[in-house]
Amino acid sequence: MESEEPKVTSSPLMPSMYSNRVMLKTILELEDSDGEMGLVGKTVVVGGWVKSSKEVKKEPMPSPPVAAGALPATRRHKDASCVEVLKSRIPFFRTIIRVLGGSASSPAVREKLESLIPKPPPASTFFLQINDGSCLSNLQVVIDSAVVPVSAGQILPTGTFILAQGVLEKPSARGKQTIELKVEKMLHVGTVEEDKYPLSRKRLPLDSLRDCAHIRPRTTTVASVTQIRSALNFATHTFFQNHGFLHVQVPIITTTDTEGFSEKFQATTLLGKTSKKEEEVGVSHADRVGLETVKAAIKKKSSLVEQLKRSDNNREALVVALQDLQKTNELAEQIEAREKFKPITAVKPDLEHLNEDFFGRQSYLTVSGRLHLESYACALGYVYSFGPRFRADKTVSAKHLAEMWIVDVEMAFSQLEDAIKCAEDVFKFLCGWILDKCSEDMKFVSKRIDNTVTHRLEYMISSSYEKISYREAVEILRKVTDEAFETQLQWGIPLTAEHLSYLADEHYRRPVIIYDYPKAVKPFYVRLNDDGNTVAAFEMVVPKIGAVITGSQNEERFDMLNTRIKEFDLSRDQYEWYLDLRRHGTVKHSGFSLGFDLMVLLATGLTDVRDVIPFPRSHGKANN
Amino acid sequence: MESEEPKVTSSPLMPSMYSNRVMLKTILELEDSDGEMGLVGKTVVVGGWVKSSKEVKKEPMPSPPVAAGALPATRRHKDASCVEVLKSRIPFFRTIIRVLGGSASSPAVREKLESLIPKPPPASTFFLQINDGSCLSNLQVVIDSAVVPVSAGQILPTGTFILAQGVLEKPSARGKQTIELKVEKMLHVGTVEEDKYPLSRKRLPLDSLRDCAHIRPRTTTVASVTQIRSALNFATHTFFQNHGFLHVQVPIITTTDTEGFSEKFQATTLLGKTSKKEEEVGVSHADRVGLETVKAAIKKKSSLVEQLKRSDNNREALVVALQDLQKTNELAEQIEAREKFKPITAVKPDLEHLNEDFFGRQSYLTVSGRLHLESYACALGYVYSFGPRFRADKTVSAKHLAEMWIVDVEMAFSQLEDAIKCAEDVFKFLCGWILDKCSEDMKFVSKRIDNTVTHRLEYMISSSYEKISYREAVEILRKVTDEAFETQLQWGIPLTAEHLSYLADEHYRRPVIIYDYPKAVKPFYVRLNDDGNTVAAFEMVVPKIGAVITGSQNEERFDMLNTRIKEFDLSRDQYEWYLDLRRHGTVKHSGFSLGFDLMVLLATGLTDVRDVIPFPRSHGKANN
Repeated sequence: MESEEPKVTSSPLMPSMYSNRVMLKTILELEDSDGEMGLVGKTVVVGGWVKSSKEVKKEPMPSPPVAAGALPATRRHKDASCVEVLKSRIPFFRTIIRVLGGSASSPAVREKLESLIPKPPPASTFFLQINDGSCLSNLQVVIDSAVVPVSAGQILPTGTFILAQGVLEKPSARGKQTIELKVEKMLHVGTVEEDKYPLSRKRLPLDSLRDCAHIRPRTTTVASVTQIRSALNFATHTFFQNHGFLHVQVPIITTTDTEGFSEKFQATTLLGKTSKKEEEVGVSHADRVGLETVKAAIKKKSSLVEQLKRSDNNREALVVALQDLQKTNELAEQIEAREKFKPITAVKPDLEHLNEDFFGRQSYLTVSGRLHLESYACALGYVYSFGPRFRADKTVSAKHLAEMWIVDVEMAFSQLEDAIKCAEDVFKFLCGWILDKCSEDMKFVSKRIDNTVTHRLEYMISSSYEKISYREAVEILRKVTDEAFETQLQWGIPLTAEHLSYLADEHYRRPVIIYDYPKAVKPFYVRLNDDGNTVAAFEMVVPKIGAVITGSQNEERFDMLNTRIKEFDLSRDQYEWYLDLRRHGTVKHSGFSLGFDLMVLLATGLTDVRDVIPFPRSHGKANN
Repeated sequence: MESEEPKVTSSPLMPSMYSNRVMLKTILELEDSDGEMGLVGKTVVVGGWVKSSKEVKKEPMPSPPVAAGALPATRRHKDASCVEVLKSRIPFFRTIIRVLGGSASSPAVREKLESLIPKPPPASTFFLQINDGSCLSNLQVVIDSAVVPVSAGQILPTGTFILAQGVLEKPSARGKQTIELKVEKMLHVGTVEEDKYPLSRKRLPLDSLRDCAHIRPRTTTVASVTQIRSALNFATHTFFQNHGFLHVQVPIITTTDTEGFSEKFQATTLLGKTSKKEEEVGVSHADRVGLETVKAAIKKKSSLVEQLKRSDNNREALVVALQDLQKTNELAEQIEAREKFKPITAVKPDLEHLNEDFFGRQSYLTVSGRLHLESYACALGYVYSFGPRFRADKTVSAKHLAEMWIVDVEMAFSQLEDAIKCAEDVFKFLCGWILDKCSEDMKFVSKRIDNTVTHRLEYMISSSYEKISYREAVEILRKVTDEAFETQLQWGIPLTAEHLSYLADEHYRRPVIIYDYPKAVKPFYVRLNDDGNTVAAFEMVVPKIGAVITGSQNEERFDMLNTRIKEFDLSRDQYEWYLDLRRHGTVKHSGFSLGFDLMVLLATGLTDVRDVIPFPRSHGKANN
């Protein structure tokens, strides 16, 4: 079993491609399927980060095993550093002895020299659970400090990286695993500054982890979410490729307002660099978020009121909307009075030179890819695009952020019911894929986050979805007396999260597809129905999540689209290219947008998108 | 064969999912494999855009067949409209006759009534080649205007959309195809305003097509490019998923300068809306591009000079760089003098209120995803990200744009040679995938764009790639006497496109991997080699395209990275999170970035990225 030269075994323990170590997945999956038989005695190199650890001292009167977290972190760290220095010198001292007191010298001389060496500190055995991200399970790594000169302070802290060569063995003590690594040689150690390491404390709540987005993938929860997210990404492409769709990368920077009523970011090179430090900033953004949320709501509600004013037959809805706006205005005034807010002077940069911006005109980060996608659908048939979309929305929400990933789909030759059918198919396909391919991670999230998540996904696949018109939805919701909705409902008013939740979570208890919305609450490009009041839009509302998919048949009639652009008071200039698609060879077409991040919420049982997006961006929050 | 009710046939001519028509691909592929046998006599609905057309008049003395383009467009259009009105009324007149002069009336009455109907215009047969984007081939559609009341002006123009029901038949005249559709019922026609339609003229050059990016997917070339691009997209995901990589969506908006020396866009909500019309803009941007290109070059060269000044042992290189800068400065002065340019006043918006921007600080569109990706690699091992990256670079180039799609890869446990190996593998995999899965489109691009493209891809897969250090590259290039490079080469100077082209296209005639670059010409995060002068970076240079892949082993040593950040004079604040990855559990790691758009160039034989990106964005160009 002992060998001077490491025999890094070939098959079945092939080192991973693109690095000189064996993935833990390779070891732990073989162990699972074969028992430990094939693996014991193999020499391998493995690497990973310490998830937990303990030290067992080898003194004549051993103190009981001490868990890594048990000693005050800073004290152990400092002690360890001294030990470390001593230990690291031992080979050096031994070399001196060999040189000075080699075979030619007398045993007496050698003995004398030996006595000059400082005594090594008492040896310990370190048990580390390490993980390399290739699977959820950890490998136990055993280090005898008499064999491998490392100290407790160096390697015990959670988050330490080790790359080690050793022999796979049957564990000495009974545990969950049937294989462990006895280290022979430490190839690399990446230590941790424990007092600064955000994950030194175990089981941080998810909202604390958001502040260290760059470190949180080292937690098992975020690792699992990442696995599921990555699987969903591939599933998305697989579905559309299998169904004859082409992937088209729509532009992120656009000079078109791709929705007509969203707050947008501008992309610019006009703003110079500033040397202003963060600390000099006066009022912090967090302080202002409350007021700004309300102001954003006012803006939205005012816009709705304006739209309702323009439409003739929505008098009742207008009254309700006006009352609602009035209430929100009062709330804003109260907050302002209470907080005695220093008024924020609006920044009005010199816009005379706007033509000197990079593109010579105002350009935005895209809100939706569907308009550009239509250009390709009206030539190639079925197309989709998977990319980031942006909204400069200051509202704090668990379901929306400033930057999110969306799957946009557009199909020529298709009408509203075709888009609904496709939306249902892709949604069910994604649910099935996760159950099929992510069983290990689903087991983990079921245990740790939400034990109904697997059952819920299965139910999504097997159940038929309720399909109701917006009018029917309003009728159902208006009958609810025991439920006090915050927004009073009336035909013409947008359905809010609480309404959608009631329909999907309580009334139907399954996904609900709502179609034929009032024209004022949907974008200008949605096709007007023959009744002149509603448009061919739909939303797929899923229990616990809300509207995961939003879609529509889009207006293919030139004159009608032109009228709608006027009704929304949009600048027609920027839509000339879009109108061209109706001017020349127009075709009926429909499509939808799937909120990819919401899909990850559904699959993981989590409730806040900030926990499933690698680096979440929201008002006042962009830390890296 | 005649049937009142359309029998939309089931298998093998299933209508496509998500629309009520049969994809042309379904018909044309069946035709290919079975001959026409199974298809003749089937009733189907098909749709598509007219690619070419002709009219054969059915008069006693037929005039010769007239091609669509032969008559002046506007005249024919107007004539057609009158004919159309008449024809559309005929069924109405017939109904009147049936009602008034039914079986009860005498034949005389009926005869009299018949004589009142306006005479129908002479009948024609229209032959249309239509395409629906599902495949490259067209289907011939035959319309007898006596059966289906449509006019020439309505349906003949290129780009017209038709949705029609008819019977598949053996063609009357011999041609390439063995099946055609005899139309029985026109379901929808989307006409074309011929005088405004950009594709009315056939075979527009690619650079003209760039000005109508929203219409150009209707050309066969751009359709083929889109097919290949979509296939490459799926191939990319397939490769990484097969090799155990996780897909991570890195943020697009970032507060980190992810490269340290690129021009960046800022994302902002500070710039208000302006009502200024495009027309009021004074000097056009196109006019300024020449000068600005030179100025951008000066900026880059100055930055290199600064970097060389900071490094001690590059005196010779510094001299060369200074001379080069001097020459470019003179060029700029000449242009300025010649063009008598009105100086552009720099826009300096009021930056006092920068903290009022959406994120409370300056935020950029990401230049590279590798830094954020490291955060996930240092927890999960192998990760990749496929997304848009941005450079506000004003240089006009056929290989770079302001917005491009990049595949970023990061691997923990890996060193420079591992990254090179992985880069080579993914590159060969992508080449193989295209040859495997896109044979129809490859046949087209070989015929129309570049007949060596298939051979070149095959050679990329089978040949071994030359690996040379930067020093060796410089030695080879300095020996070239018959080649007058624009930039004189010296150790320490970046290799330019002409150098790379010489190495890959002329000297080695295959892909060349160049590694160990001078530290001043690569980003701050690349790992310093033991010689203290070079860094562990590499580039994979491909004949005809240039550097498709750029990669490196990144600095894992905290102190070294800290020093490099200082050397590059970067604001350390924004890199604290990045330094954390070295502070806690650091690991050796490497990765690379693959220019996806360049990969599409390689696969299609095209030479300008503006022809392979759906909506290209460059200085002064963002039209939709």
